[in-house]
Amino acid sequence: MISNHYTQAGVDIGAADTLKKDIARLARVTLRPEVLAGPGLFGGMFELKGFTQPVLVSSMDGVGTKLKLAVTLDRLDTVGIDIVNHSVNDILTCGATPLFFLDYIAMGHLKPEAVREIVKGLSSACQDVSCTLIGGETAEMPGLYAGSDFDLVGCIIGAVEKSEIINGQTITPGDIILGLPSSGLHTNGYSLVRRVLGEGIEDLGKYHPELGMTLGEALLIPHRSYLKELKSLLTLVKGMAHITGGGFPGNVPRVLPENTAARFDAKAWEIPPLFRLIESRGGIARDEMYRVFNMGIGIALIAAPDDAYRLKERLPEAMIIGEIVRLQGSDRVVFD
Amino acid sequence: MISNHYTQAGVDIGAADTLKKDIARLARVTLRPEVLAGPGLFGGMFELKGFTQPVLVSSMDGVGTKLKLAVTLDRLDTVGIDIVNHSVNDILTCGATPLFFLDYIAMGHLKPEAVREIVKGLSSACQDVSCTLIGGETAEMPGLYAGSDFDLVGCIIGAVEKSEIINGQTITPGDIILGLPSSGLHTNGYSLVRRVLGEGIEDLGKYHPELGMTLGEALLIPHRSYLKELKSLLTLVKGMAHITGGGFPGNVPRVLPENTAARFDAKAWEIPPLFRLIESRGGIARDEMYRVFNMGIGIALIAAPDDAYRLKERLPEAMIIGEIVRLQGSDRVVFD
Repeated sequence: MISNHYTQAGVDIGAADTLKKDIARLARVTLRPEVLAGPGLFGGMFELKGFTQPVLVSSMDGVGTKLKLAVTLDRLDTVGIDIVNHSVNDILTCGATPLFFLDYIAMGHLKPEAVREIVKGLSSACQDVSCTLIGGETAEMPGLYAGSDFDLVGCIIGAVEKSEIINGQTITPGDIILGLPSSGLHTNGYSLVRRVLGEGIEDLGKYHPELGMTLGEALLIPHRSYLKELKSLLTLVKGMAHITGGGFPGNVPRVLPENTAARFDAKAWEIPPLFRLIESRGGIARDEMYRVFNMGIGIALIAAPDDAYRLKERLPEAMIIGEIVRLQGSDRVVFD
Repeated sequence: MISNHYTQAGVDIGAADTLKKDIARLARVTLRPEVLAGPGLFGGMFELKGFTQPVLVSSMDGVGTKLKLAVTLDRLDTVGIDIVNHSVNDILTCGATPLFFLDYIAMGHLKPEAVREIVKGLSSACQDVSCTLIGGETAEMPGLYAGSDFDLVGCIIGAVEKSEIINGQTITPGDIILGLPSSGLHTNGYSLVRRVLGEGIEDLGKYHPELGMTLGEALLIPHRSYLKELKSLLTLVKGMAHITGGGFPGNVPRVLPENTAARFDAKAWEIPPLFRLIESRGGIARDEMYRVFNMGIGIALIAAPDDAYRLKERLPEAMIIGEIVRLQGSDRVVFD
């Protein structure tokens, strides 16, 4: 349970007590009625109710090198949102809604203020999607993490009725691909961005007119979750791809049946200025951009034509960005 | 799913392909029939069957600075066992048996051979307790992890029938505390050990007659899991404490009802040579030793006297190490 978070931190007792109370308060707002109370227990307990044939869907991931930017900019309240929303989207692609979330925060020396900011982000994102922040661990590992560096890992557990699993199996040529806009880079491509645009405080603090904000602000925009918009529309969707590391070619084929490919109309949506800035500054080929970044599309939905138009009506932001075709050759993702 | 492990690693394609196949093979031996096949899906899927009122019990943790020793000794096949068994014991204290496990491995630069060794340990420990290694992530984070350093995090999900939850609520004065031996330090106290005994390869390679092995070998002995021995005996147990970080005072009170305390008979078991070595070399007070280390007891079981004797009959290694008393003063853990 949350209450055993931070008990072994190498911080002074008073600060640790205050931190523990703050964490407990932040976690409490995420509590769902299924959570069985039990302060101090060794495992978080969640009663699974209301499912006929429950299938548990889980995902574990980190924030990656976006963390480094957050440390440089001393802005730690967004990375928790990143990892929660990233995880929520991952299990959403199977049709699952979140039940609970666990976090792991590791630092060289525990800084209560930093932990508090990180947990604030975790808590607000969890609350936003009715997911309980049920447990976690904060590890102090001197000699492994230098200076203000830390790592942040999350594990989400959700559930879906067996009959409502979304797995792309019924996708056929002629199906339509819809895209929903990303909020920014989400959590991928940051190692490349840091090389191309610099990672110093001067680079990050520079105002870019085309972004309408500083580079640092644009890069730290949190990963967006698509659960709320899509929750009531999942029966219309045959397959979903969360556009994360690996971009379009790395993620879309994961839900495609054999002998099908995804053909995208590259002109169907405008590539946001941040991606164009990275592309031009880095002299990066367009193909490579699609392999690394989401290019403005955070999630792709595949549906039969009729359902695709129904989805589009209900989702004002949705754009028709491509279609499913018969596989020809070996490219499972093609851009026109 | 396991199959999206390591897809974005910065290793050459051939090595990455070989690694992916090795990982898949290692994960495959842990598959339970409840896992729904779905190569490439974004979340691991596990059908929950056979429970009337299932309560999901989860725990997330890292291995801590024991990792540093493993790196120094270039012996990476045991840390996976550590994190799995640690997690299995944590949820066992609530009466839960494991369903599935997810891992996170982060390195500065991905070394396929290192990842393979780590996953070997995860897989063998999971297989040993019928827990599916259902998913995970390997992150390459240059600039965060130096040299051969890495972090390893695990999240376990288990389940227990609501009516069979173990939470210590019925514990009363007069109940007996049984202890089961630890295999070594398990996963706690390593920062202190490294300070006291040194962390150089010479220190670790030294043979200690009282240990019957080198110091490094003794320190790397994997965390032991108690699931197999206890699985069929859980109805006899009122409360359980996994003796991890915080030692006896940090863990035993977590399962005690208000107004009760645990009185241990310090002479009831022999403190293993490794702990005595640390104590004498570091000039560490006995009290402090009990606050940091397991001192030879990996898990404490609390049961009514009749049941305690039944447990002792069925568990040849179990030792009567204390009893529950009425709380007097503020010390919830007392050593006679």
